[in-house]
Amino acid sequence: MNFAISAELQDLLSRIEALMQTVVYPLEPAFLSTRFSLLAPQLQAARARIKEAGLWAPQVPAELGGMGLSLLEHGLVSEALGKSPLGHFVFGCQAPDAGNIEVLHKYGTPEQIDRFLLPLCKGEIRSCFAMTEPDSPGSNPTQLHTRAVRSGDEFVLDGRKWFTTAADGAAFAVVMAVTNPEAAAHQRASMLLVPTSTPGFELVRNISIMGDANDGFASHAEIKLSGCRVPATNLLGPQGAGFLIAQERLGPGRIHHCMRWLGICARSFDLLCQRALSRKIDATETLADKQLVQAMIAESRAEIDAARLLVLQTAWRIDQAGHEGHAPSKAASGHAKTHAGASGFAAAQEDVSLIKFHVAGVMQRVVDRAVQVHGAMGITSDTVLSYFYAHERGSRIYDGPDEVHKLAAARRILRRYARS
Amino acid sequence: MNFAISAELQDLLSRIEALMQTVVYPLEPAFLSTRFSLLAPQLQAARARIKEAGLWAPQVPAELGGMGLSLLEHGLVSEALGKSPLGHFVFGCQAPDAGNIEVLHKYGTPEQIDRFLLPLCKGEIRSCFAMTEPDSPGSNPTQLHTRAVRSGDEFVLDGRKWFTTAADGAAFAVVMAVTNPEAAAHQRASMLLVPTSTPGFELVRNISIMGDANDGFASHAEIKLSGCRVPATNLLGPQGAGFLIAQERLGPGRIHHCMRWLGICARSFDLLCQRALSRKIDATETLADKQLVQAMIAESRAEIDAARLLVLQTAWRIDQAGHEGHAPSKAASGHAKTHAGASGFAAAQEDVSLIKFHVAGVMQRVVDRAVQVHGAMGITSDTVLSYFYAHERGSRIYDGPDEVHKLAAARRILRRYARS
Amino acid sequence: MNFAISAELQDLLSRIEALMQTVVYPLEPAFLSTRFSLLAPQLQAARARIKEAGLWAPQVPAELGGMGLSLLEHGLVSEALGKSPLGHFVFGCQAPDAGNIEVLHKYGTPEQIDRFLLPLCKGEIRSCFAMTEPDSPGSNPTQLHTRAVRSGDEFVLDGRKWFTTAADGAAFAVVMAVTNPEAAAHQRASMLLVPTSTPGFELVRNISIMGDANDGFASHAEIKLSGCRVPATNLLGPQGAGFLIAQERLGPGRIHHCMRWLGICARSFDLLCQRALSRKIDATETLADKQLVQAMIAESRAEIDAARLLVLQTAWRIDQAGHEGHAPSKAASGHAKTHAGASGFAAAQEDVSLIKFHVAGVMQRVVDRAVQVHGAMGITSDTVLSYFYAHERGSRIYDGPDEVHKLAAARRILRRYARS
Amino acid sequence: MNFAISAELQDLLSRIEALMQTVVYPLEPAFLSTRFSLLAPQLQAARARIKEAGLWAPQVPAELGGMGLSLLEHGLVSEALGKSPLGHFVFGCQAPDAGNIEVLHKYGTPEQIDRFLLPLCKGEIRSCFAMTEPDSPGSNPTQLHTRAVRSGDEFVLDGRKWFTTAADGAAFAVVMAVTNPEAAAHQRASMLLVPTSTPGFELVRNISIMGDANDGFASHAEIKLSGCRVPATNLLGPQGAGFLIAQERLGPGRIHHCMRWLGICARSFDLLCQRALSRKIDATETLADKQLVQAMIAESRAEIDAARLLVLQTAWRIDQAGHEGHAPSKAASGHAKTHAGASGFAAAQEDVSLIKFHVAGVMQRVVDRAVQVHGAMGITSDTVLSYFYAHERGSRIYDGPDEVHKLAAARRILRRYARS
Repeated sequence: MNFAISAELQDLLSRIEALMQTVVYPLEPAFLSTRFSLLAPQLQAARARIKEAGLWAPQVPAELGGMGLSLLEHGLVSEALGKSPLGHFVFGCQAPDAGNIEVLHKYGTPEQIDRFLLPLCKGEIRSCFAMTEPDSPGSNPTQLHTRAVRSGDEFVLDGRKWFTTAADGAAFAVVMAVTNPEAAAHQRASMLLVPTSTPGFELVRNISIMGDANDGFASHAEIKLSGCRVPATNLLGPQGAGFLIAQERLGPGRIHHCMRWLGICARSFDLLCQRALSRKIDATETLADKQLVQAMIAESRAEIDAARLLVLQTAWRIDQAGHEGHAPSKAASGHAKTHAGASGFAAAQEDVSLIKFHVAGVMQRVVDRAVQVHGAMGITSDTVLSYFYAHERGSRIYDGPDEVHKLAAARRILRRYARS
Repeated sequence: MNFAISAELQDLLSRIEALMQTVVYPLEPAFLSTRFSLLAPQLQAARARIKEAGLWAPQVPAELGGMGLSLLEHGLVSEALGKSPLGHFVFGCQAPDAGNIEVLHKYGTPEQIDRFLLPLCKGEIRSCFAMTEPDSPGSNPTQLHTRAVRSGDEFVLDGRKWFTTAADGAAFAVVMAVTNPEAAAHQRASMLLVPTSTPGFELVRNISIMGDANDGFASHAEIKLSGCRVPATNLLGPQGAGFLIAQERLGPGRIHHCMRWLGICARSFDLLCQRALSRKIDATETLADKQLVQAMIAESRAEIDAARLLVLQTAWRIDQAGHEGHAPSKAASGHAKTHAGASGFAAAQEDVSLIKFHVAGVMQRVVDRAVQVHGAMGITSDTVLSYFYAHERGSRIYDGPDEVHKLAAARRILRRYARS
Repeated sequence: MNFAISAELQDLLSRIEALMQTVVYPLEPAFLSTRFSLLAPQLQAARARIKEAGLWAPQVPAELGGMGLSLLEHGLVSEALGKSPLGHFVFGCQAPDAGNIEVLHKYGTPEQIDRFLLPLCKGEIRSCFAMTEPDSPGSNPTQLHTRAVRSGDEFVLDGRKWFTTAADGAAFAVVMAVTNPEAAAHQRASMLLVPTSTPGFELVRNISIMGDANDGFASHAEIKLSGCRVPATNLLGPQGAGFLIAQERLGPGRIHHCMRWLGICARSFDLLCQRALSRKIDATETLADKQLVQAMIAESRAEIDAARLLVLQTAWRIDQAGHEGHAPSKAASGHAKTHAGASGFAAAQEDVSLIKFHVAGVMQRVVDRAVQVHGAMGITSDTVLSYFYAHERGSRIYDGPDEVHKLAAARRILRRYARS
Repeated sequence: MNFAISAELQDLLSRIEALMQTVVYPLEPAFLSTRFSLLAPQLQAARARIKEAGLWAPQVPAELGGMGLSLLEHGLVSEALGKSPLGHFVFGCQAPDAGNIEVLHKYGTPEQIDRFLLPLCKGEIRSCFAMTEPDSPGSNPTQLHTRAVRSGDEFVLDGRKWFTTAADGAAFAVVMAVTNPEAAAHQRASMLLVPTSTPGFELVRNISIMGDANDGFASHAEIKLSGCRVPATNLLGPQGAGFLIAQERLGPGRIHHCMRWLGICARSFDLLCQRALSRKIDATETLADKQLVQAMIAESRAEIDAARLLVLQTAWRIDQAGHEGHAPSKAASGHAKTHAGASGFAAAQEDVSLIKFHVAGVMQRVVDRAVQVHGAMGITSDTVLSYFYAHERGSRIYDGPDEVHKLAAARRILRRYARS
C-alpha cells in the first residue's frame, strides 16, 4: 500500500487549485445571485483561460483532446474542481456532458462523432441526458413510458421526461425510449440522439429546486416529446441496448459524483474553519474557541478523510480491473477507463453502492455543520454553502436513492457470506 | 395529569383544519411557484373568509378583537396553522406581527395603540422587527451597532440591519437601537417605532435564502438607516429597556416557533405516509411496503409525539406561572399571557431552551425523511416539503442557535445540581 | 390538558424518593460487587421497612393488599423505583412477579389464588415466566417447541426455555407450552403453573450476561423440562389461550419497562450532572464547565423529558380506554387496570410499540453519555451506570426488538392513512 | 496511490487467519465462560504453535526475535489478530507488554534488557504499566499523585494506581511516579521498573468491568504502593523523562488499539452476516431477507472500510515520517518504527487523534448492530459480541476520551487555517 501522490499529479492539482482561486471562485458571487445564462460571457472567458493552461477536459481521452487521466487521477482532479459549483463546467468535465462523451466515444458512429461528440469535447455545444420520468420510479427503469416507434427511416418519440439536467440551451439530448416493447424487460429501450431543435421536442419548464429554477446549464428541465421525429441513424448504440449503456454510464457517473462531493466537503470544511476563526463572539473569543465548534471540525475532518480514501480505493479498483493486460501508462489508463471500464465497474458495483450513499451522507452532515457555523449568513445566497445545502440534497436521491444502494450492497455482501 | 383536549377546543381545531383544507392549501401551489406579492388578492380573500368564520387572530387578546387563547390553546392552534407556510398569515397570527402586537399591547402609548396596534390587529397593515445586524453575533445583543441619537424631540437612527423579516411592504418597523451608549451593558438599547416611509429608511435588498429571495411578507430584508428621524414619542416602552422588552418578546416567539414547527412536522408526516402509500414500486408493491420507509414512519411518529408533548407542557407551565391569582377563564388567560407572561417565561427559560433546539432538530429530521420518500419530487417546488427543507434550516439558527440554547439550558440545570 | 400531579401523588412520590435514599441506594454497592443471593437478609429487612411505610406493591389491586394505583400513577412510581436496579424488588413490584400477579388475578382458580397468588403478593415466594426458547425467534411465538401433553389428569412437559428471568430461587414457573398442536396457529399454546421442585424441571444454568451470570432474582436461567408432570388443574386460564394471555401480559409489561427505563434515565442524568460538577480538570475547572459535557446534559434532558411525557400519555390513554363506565376513583382505577386493561392496551398498541423502541433508545444514549462523563470509573462496577449499560442493552431486544416494534407501529399508522 | 497489498504480506495474513481459525477461536468459549487463569495450559500450547509457525511477536524488531514489521504491515496483522480477544495474546503482541517492549528496547540499560526485556519478548513473563490514578483525570498527567523519593541508592514509591491492565500475574510493573516535584510541569515524573514481588507493592483488587473482574492477563487492577523500594538502577530512561516516554508510548499504543478495533469490527461484521443468514424468521425467510438488517450491513461495511483506510493511511504516514534516510527494507522498517518513531508520531498527532475517536465510534456502532441482530443471544456470553460490547466501551475513554481527542485534533487543524 502506498498513499503517496506522484509529484506530477501533485503539480497538476496545484495548478488546478491556483486556477480555481483566480478564475473560478471570483465568478461565484454572480453565479449565486443571478441566472446562469447571464454569466455566459464570463464563463466563456474562464474556459478560454483553462484551455490556454492546457487543463481542459481532464477526463476526456487524449485522442479526443483531453488529458486522459485514470479514474483515480480524475478523482483527485474532480475533488479539486468540485469545490465550486462552477469548477467542472469551467474545466470542461461537467455532467451530463462528461457521461454523454463517454457513451458517444464508445458507441458513436463516425457521423455521430463528427456531429455530436467533437463539438461537445471542445465545449462548443452542450448536451443533456433524458432518462428519468415523472411518473415512474427511477430505481426501476423497466417502467419507462417514453416510446420511440420506427416509422420508415425515422423514429417517432412520444413521452415525458424530467430532471433532464442542463436541457435548457443544450444542442441535443440523449433520450432513453422504449423501441422494443415486446422484448425482455431489460432489452426494450434504446438511446437516441435528439437535437433540441427537433419539432415536437418541448422544454416545458425548468423545475424549481427549493424555490430556484435557474436556467441554462444550471437547470433541470421537464421535457415533452410529441411526435418528435429523428433519423434512424440517430440511434446511439445497438437497438435495445439502452439499459446496458445506461448502466455503463451510471457506474462512472456515481464515482464522478462522489469525487465532486468530496470537493464540496473540502470547500465546506475550509469555509467552516475560516468562519470559526474570523467570527468574533466577544472581545477575546471567536467561534473557533468554542468546544462545540471544535467537535464539528474534528468529526467532519475524520468523516471526510475516511470517505475520501474509500472513494479513491474504489476508483483504483476500477482502474485495476479495467486495465488487465494494459501497461499502466497514463494514455493507456485513460483509454482503458473508457473502453474497458465496464468490467472494472462490474467488479466494483458493491463499492460503488457503498460510496454512493456513504459519501452523500458525509457531505450532507459536513455542509450542514458549515451552514450552522455561519449562522444566519449560512442560509443565504451570500455563501456557496446554501447552494450546496439546497442543491445537493438531491445527492441522496439521484442515481439511486440511499435505500436502494444500501439494499443492493447488502445483498451482494450477503451472497458472498452465503457461499462461504 | 390529563392529556385530554376539551370538546370546545377540539371543535375549534376541527374548524381550523377544515379551513386549512378549503382555504389555505389551495393557495400553496401558487405560493411555491411565484412571488408572494402576486398572491395579494387571493390572500386578502382568504383572510376575509377566516374573519367571517370568527377565527381571526387566535392569539390576540379578546379586547383587541382576537380569540384570547391561552398559550397552550394557541399552541394547538398554531400546530394546525403551521401545516402550511401560509396558515399563520391567513389566520392573522403571523410573525413578526404577532410579537409586535404583544409588545405594543403591553407598552404602547394610547397614540401608538391607535396608529400602530389597532390596524395591525385588523390585518390592515404589516410590520417588521429590526434587531439582527450583519456584523455582530445575534447571540450577544450587547454588540449592537445601530445608534439612535436624541436630537431635540426626535431620535436620529443610523445603522444596518438584516434578516428583518417581512420588511418589504411593512408600514413600520420596530427598530432596536442604542440610545444610551454609556449605560450598563443591557440598558443601552431602546425600541423605536419607525414608519418605513421615513426618509433614510432604505430596504437594501430582500436576502436570497438558498436561491430564493421572494418578496413581501415572505422575505427577509437588509435595511439601511441613514439619518432616519422619528419623533421621540415613537419610543416604544421606557428608554434603555430595549433588551428587557426583546427578551419578553423572544420567549413567546420561541414557543410560537416550536408550535409552528410541530405543524410542519405534522404536514410532512402526512405527506410522507401518503406518498409511501401512493408511490408504486412495481405491480404489487408501494413504498409503504418497504421496511426502510416503515422505520422512517415509526421513528418520525415517536419523535414528533414526544416533542409535541414537551412543547405543550412548556406552554402549560408558562400559562400556570403567568396566571397567579387569576381565574383560568379564557379571557383572563389571554390577557394574562400578554401581561403576566414575563414571570411565566422566566420560570420556563430552561424548558424554552430545551424545546427550541430539540423541536428544530426533530423537524429537520422529519422533513428530511419526507423529502427522501418523495424522491426527485421532494427537492422540487412541486411540493411544500422543499420549502420547509430550505426555509426552515434557519430554525436551528434564528432566535438563538442550537449551541447557545444547549449551553444555556445545561448551565441552568447544573446550577440546580450545584445547589443540592 | 393538565400536566399537574395531584398533591396526594406528589406526596407519595416524595415518600418513595426518601425511602430510595435511605433504604435502597445503600444496598447498591453490595449488589454491584457480589451475588444477589448473598444480599437476601438485607433485602428482607429493606422490604420490611417498605411494608411498614405502607408502600408495598403499589401496582397490586387493593383487594390483594397493594396500593391499587392507576397505570399513570404507577408509571410515576415506577420511574422513582427504576432509579435503582433494586427499587422494584424492594417495593414488591418487580418483573416477572408483577406480570404473573396480573395473570393469576384475572385467570387464577380459587385454589391457584391461594397457593400461588397470595404468597406472591406478600413477597413470600418468587416466580418466573418461561416463554422464550433458544432456537426459535421470540418475535414469532407460533414457533414454540415446548410441548405439554395431556396424560390422564396431568400434563407432561418437555422442552427448553431460556431467558427465564429470576427462575433461580423461584417457587414456581408460568410455562408457555403447546397443548393443542393441531389447532389454529394462535390457539396451540397454554399456560401452566409448574412448581420448580417438580421432577424434570431442571435449571441448566444462569446465563452469563456480558460476563456476569449473577444468581437468584438477578439472573436469567436456561431451563430444561424433561417429562415434567403437573396436575391438569395447574392450567392457568383456558386451554389454548396461552398467546392471548401472553399478549395481555406483554402489553402492560412493555409499559412497565418503559416507566422503569425512565427511572434509569433519571438516575443516570443525576449521576452525570453530579459527576460533571465534582470532577476537577485542573485548579479552576470541572467537567461541568466543558461545552461538550453541557451539550450532553441539554440533549439528554430534552430527550428524557419528551420521552417521559410520551410514556405517561400512553399510560393515561390505557387508563382511559380501560375505564369505560367506571368512576375514576383510585380503587376502581386499580381494579380496572387489571380487569379491563385488555381493551386499553388494544387501543394503545401503536403507542406501546412507539414507546418501546423510542424510550429504549433514549435510555441507551443517556446511559452511554453518563458512562462517558464518568471516564474509566464509568465502565466499572463501582457505579450503577455500568450495570445499566450492560444489563439494559437487552431493552432493545426483549419483549420485541426495536425493528419489530417499528414495523408494527408503522403498519398500524399506514392503515389509518390508507383508510382516509 | 496504490491500495494493493504485496503477495508476501497477503500470504502472511492468510497464514495468520488460518491459525486464528484452528488455534485461537476454539479457545474462545472457555475464555468467555471462565476465568483467564484457568486457561493457562491451553494458551501456553497455543503460543507454542504460533512460535512453531514462525509468527511469534510480529511487531517486535527482528534482533529481539520478532518479525520486524512496519507499522502499516503490523496494522494489517493486528486487524487479523483483533478478531478475537485472545489473538494478540496468543501471537505475543498484546498490550501492555508490546508497549513496554518498545520502551525497554529504546531506553533499557543492558541489565534491564537482560532481566526484563528478553524474557518479555519470549513470553516467559508478563508486565504491566501503572500510570492512571483513581483520583486524577487521566487527560492531565501533570496531576500525578504517586511519588518516588530517592533514598540512598533506592527509590521509595508511594501512591495508588488503577486500570493497571494485566497486573495480576505480571512479573513487573512500569510505574509512572513523580521524582522531581519541583521541576517544570512535564519534567516531574519518571518511569521505574518495579517487580510485583517487591514488598509494599499490593494488588488491591481486580476491578470489575460491568460485573466481570476476570483475572490474570484479562484483568485491570487497582494497585497500592506503600514504601515500595526499588534500586535506583530500575529507573527506565532519564529521570524526569516520564511524560516524554509516556507520550512516545501512547502514540503507537493508540494506533495499535485502532488496528485491533478494526479486527473487532471485522469479526462483528462476519458474525452479523452469518447470523442474519442462519436465523430463520419463518418457513421461507431469514433475518438476511429483512431490509432493516440489510441496511445495518451496508452502513457497517461502508463505515468499517472507510475507517480502515484512515487507520492504514495514518500508519503509512508514520512509517514514512520515521524512515527518513532509511531504505524501506523490512528489517530497517521495524527498527525504524521503534527508534525513529517519535518523529513519525509527532507528524501524525492530528491523524492519531482523528482515528482514535472515529474508529472507536465505528466499532461501538458495528458491535451494537451485531448484538442487535443476534437478539437475546447477543447479550450473553455465548457469543464474543457481548464481550466486545462490554469491554470495548472503554475504547472511547482510555488513552484519552473522545472529547479530548476531538478538541486536540480541531485545535491543530485550526492552527493551520490561522496561519494560512
